[in-house]
Amino acid sequence: MAFEFKVTRRVEFSETDMAGIVHFANFFRYMESAEHGFYRALGHSVVMHQFDPPLGFPRVHAECDYRKPLRFEDLLEIHLLVKEKKPRVLTYLFKFRKVTGEPIEIARGLLTVVCVSHSPGKMEAVPIPAELSAQIEVAPAELLV
Amino acid sequence: MAFEFKVTRRVEFSETDMAGIVHFANFFRYMESAEHGFYRALGHSVVMHQFDPPLGFPRVHAECDYRKPLRFEDLLEIHLLVKEKKPRVLTYLFKFRKVTGEPIEIARGLLTVVCVSHSPGKMEAVPIPAELSAQIEVAPAELLV
Amino acid sequence: MAFEFKVTRRVEFSETDMAGIVHFANFFRYMESAEHGFYRALGHSVVMHQFDPPLGFPRVHAECDYRKPLRFEDLLEIHLLVKEKKPRVLTYLFKFRKVTGEPIEIARGLLTVVCVSHSPGKMEAVPIPAELSAQIEVAPAELLV
Amino acid sequence: MAFEFKVTRRVEFSETDMAGIVHFANFFRYMESAEHGFYRALGHSVVMHQFDPPLGFPRVHAECDYRKPLRFEDLLEIHLLVKEKKPRVLTYLFKFRKVTGEPIEIARGLLTVVCVSHSPGKMEAVPIPAELSAQIEVAPAELLV
Repeated sequence: MAFEFKVTRRVEFSETDMAGIVHFANFFRYMESAEHGFYRALGHSVVMHQFDPPLGFPRVHAECDYRKPLRFEDLLEIHLLVKEKKPRVLTYLFKFRKVTGEPIEIARGLLTVVCVSHSPGKMEAVPIPAELSAQIEVAPAELLV
Repeated sequence: MAFEFKVTRRVEFSETDMAGIVHFANFFRYMESAEHGFYRALGHSVVMHQFDPPLGFPRVHAECDYRKPLRFEDLLEIHLLVKEKKPRVLTYLFKFRKVTGEPIEIARGLLTVVCVSHSPGKMEAVPIPAELSAQIEVAPAELLV
Repeated sequence: MAFEFKVTRRVEFSETDMAGIVHFANFFRYMESAEHGFYRALGHSVVMHQFDPPLGFPRVHAECDYRKPLRFEDLLEIHLLVKEKKPRVLTYLFKFRKVTGEPIEIARGLLTVVCVSHSPGKMEAVPIPAELSAQIEVAPAELLV
Repeated sequence: MAFEFKVTRRVEFSETDMAGIVHFANFFRYMESAEHGFYRALGHSVVMHQFDPPLGFPRVHAECDYRKPLRFEDLLEIHLLVKEKKPRVLTYLFKFRKVTGEPIEIARGLLTVVCVSHSPGKMEAVPIPAELSAQIEVAPAELLV
């Protein structure tokens, strides 16, 4: 059973904007990248072609609160925590910490994804596959504050 | 006094992902692009070099709810509405409508920005310049639902 | 018969980087966007689902020479010219001109695309459909210098 | 003296497009990311604030030849090789290899950068700082084929 995942990455030049900091939309790419790393750590890919019709996890809600600027070449830790788990829906909390110099919290995000089945021309919410669901649990409350 | 701004754009190939739809992070670029168009329509740029030290509007909160997929070559209308106005802070609501075929709401977003003064090595929240503030008002409640 | 296409766009904030100019990789997105506008002007989409198997135009070569910096809110004209036409291959020349202030050439690009047929699990170069090919001709030599 | 640098990265979902492969413009971001890793490995950053006025390395030419598609979650090795070294100009060759399954060459790129000094309102080509230049040499010819 897993309720968290951590990954560290270095900010790239192309992720900055003319304000000299990481463009705010890129935090959503960072969240997704940690989410996919979480599935891989559990032995899965977010693209589940082994099912017929194949399953996917489109986003229904995404948000981010920005506290401090993040700059080129900063080392960033993304800490994913499972915040909610429903039969068809998962919500992840993300804590962004700069690990260059003394660690400070940069931002905090949320992502809500729904498990769907992709038939040609239609998408339908379906239960998360038992094999994957059995590996995921909600994080302890004290980590979610 | 202005409380809204509309802009239409066509979805580009590079904005899609392997799921065949617009990548969810790109909706935040769309929001920002409409926000900057709003300032330009008022005769300003978001980068206010005419002040010393220069002013900017970093984002402190961003969120989006996704309802329908958006695809390559779809025509998208982004409707910005001023949701809240405080001396240093503005919150915008964005309604995304597909205007290809019958208009349907694709997504809805929020962006909260703070007016800051950029001195070398520090950023400080300051009141929105009177000249700009005087041009902006909160949208009527019935448009914000 | 068409040998050129022009489109104007305004540089967006998210296209800049911390050097204060448009990130060099974005010129390739601009080229592609003009290429797709060219097909639309001819009544086609680059994604040709009306064929079975569907056709596409993957890139085999892309290049760009950068002469002047391009900045946020600059108006940019992208001028596509058909440089070479072979049965399965098209090469486009792109002239990037800033149209804010006095027009200056910012950059110049090349894109070579191949017409392919997408069967599941394989991609094969095929002749450009006659209907599309009949509409495209090489630009006059004096425009290609 | 260094003439090469290798870095491996995993393809992210947001780097793909609706054709199911990595969008061609992203190879230029990959090149730049390896270039910056090369400077870091030599103890430098591409943003050289220690000089007054600060130095930078804008791109004057970029190109890429695409041979095979690259897909989500593929592991990609980027192999930077110094191809040419002039007093003010460096040209890098990049070999992209997929390291998932049997290694195959995916693409090959070139990037030419110029050392410039950034005074307010002007940019001027200057010699590469001796300290950096002394660490860089052209790769052996047999690696450049």
